[in-house]
Amino acid sequence: MEKSESTKIEMGESSKLERKLGKAPLLGSPSHAISSAVVANKRAGNYKRGIAIFDLILRIAAVATAIGAAVGMGTAGETLPFFTQFFQFEAGYDDLPTFQFFVVAMAIVVAYLVLSIPFSIVCIARSHVVAPRLLLIIFDTAIVSLTTSAAGASAAIVYLAHNGNQDANWLAFCNQFGDFCQTTSGAVVAGFITVVILLILIVLSAIALKRH
Amino acid sequence: MEKSESTKIEMGESSKLERKLGKAPLLGSPSHAISSAVVANKRAGNYKRGIAIFDLILRIAAVATAIGAAVGMGTAGETLPFFTQFFQFEAGYDDLPTFQFFVVAMAIVVAYLVLSIPFSIVCIARSHVVAPRLLLIIFDTAIVSLTTSAAGASAAIVYLAHNGNQDANWLAFCNQFGDFCQTTSGAVVAGFITVVILLILIVLSAIALKRH
Repeated sequence: MEKSESTKIEMGESSKLERKLGKAPLLGSPSHAISSAVVANKRAGNYKRGIAIFDLILRIAAVATAIGAAVGMGTAGETLPFFTQFFQFEAGYDDLPTFQFFVVAMAIVVAYLVLSIPFSIVCIARSHVVAPRLLLIIFDTAIVSLTTSAAGASAAIVYLAHNGNQDANWLAFCNQFGDFCQTTSGAVVAGFITVVILLILIVLSAIALKRH
Repeated sequence: MEKSESTKIEMGESSKLERKLGKAPLLGSPSHAISSAVVANKRAGNYKRGIAIFDLILRIAAVATAIGAAVGMGTAGETLPFFTQFFQFEAGYDDLPTFQFFVVAMAIVVAYLVLSIPFSIVCIARSHVVAPRLLLIIFDTAIVSLTTSAAGASAAIVYLAHNGNQDANWLAFCNQFGDFCQTTSGAVVAGFITVVILLILIVLSAIALKRH
């Protein structure tokens, strides 16, 4: 739509130029150069549109993995089948502040990614506009650091839960709460997959910004 | 240097165009349009050069903070002034695998940043070339995720060392090893400052890529 419009305008300018120069085109070269520029422009537009479509697909995939990470961590919990007179042994994500941070961070990431989808669609519809793309790359960069820090912190805690640390006298509890550990590990992996998708998104946006 | 060269070429072309069109310029408009394009080009070049210089300064600052983080963490260690017959109480960064990861990651970041400085200088000298800038933005993105995960993981462990976790029965050891805790906390803060600088670098590179 937009592309055909710009083509028309270019053609109009070329004929105006011809009129200025006289009745017949001089050597025929200006109209030639302009039409080849139009073709190059069209090709760059297709290229950018392809990147924008890929961006949208990756963004939806990132929403899926981020929701998986948040829900997986949020529902992680295990109650052991035996209890004493005074307490029952149970583990939940809210026992560890780092896992709480992970759930909150992943919820923010999901919200951001859903809100960014309209901008991604604008990049498909108007592939020559730079403003939404620049906006996306800036916010993607901020969000990727949030996601990475949450995933990294949770990975450190999951590692401790699995292996413990003898020097600090922190005991592993995955022998007792195996199910809880498995769920949280899965959530951390989903978090890292989200990070990788976001990194690809940033690189794609940078490449799309380059090709003007 | 490069800019004055391109100016000369543009002028040469303009005079060739004038010769083609005849002895006198037609309405004087082509040379006008070309000279205003040259001015706009020059202005964009100055703008980009400014960003590239700022990029170099930030990069050097990031080297400093990353070295601070790596050295701070690497030299963190404390030996308590009392000991039993069998052992001496001491804490070092190599007691915790996460802190070892932090030191290694920060060493990689320092190495990358030092190696990237020549590319940043190329961006200053030839502000219109896009290839080194794109290369920088891609590797910066990879490195920022490494830095953030290391800093986030270490922050989670430092938090545990300060506050412990009652539910998992992990006790805080900062009461005993206060000096060690303070040094590692400082290193983690330096790591996060490096992350912020790298994020600014990515956004700057994206803005510089936009303005063609």
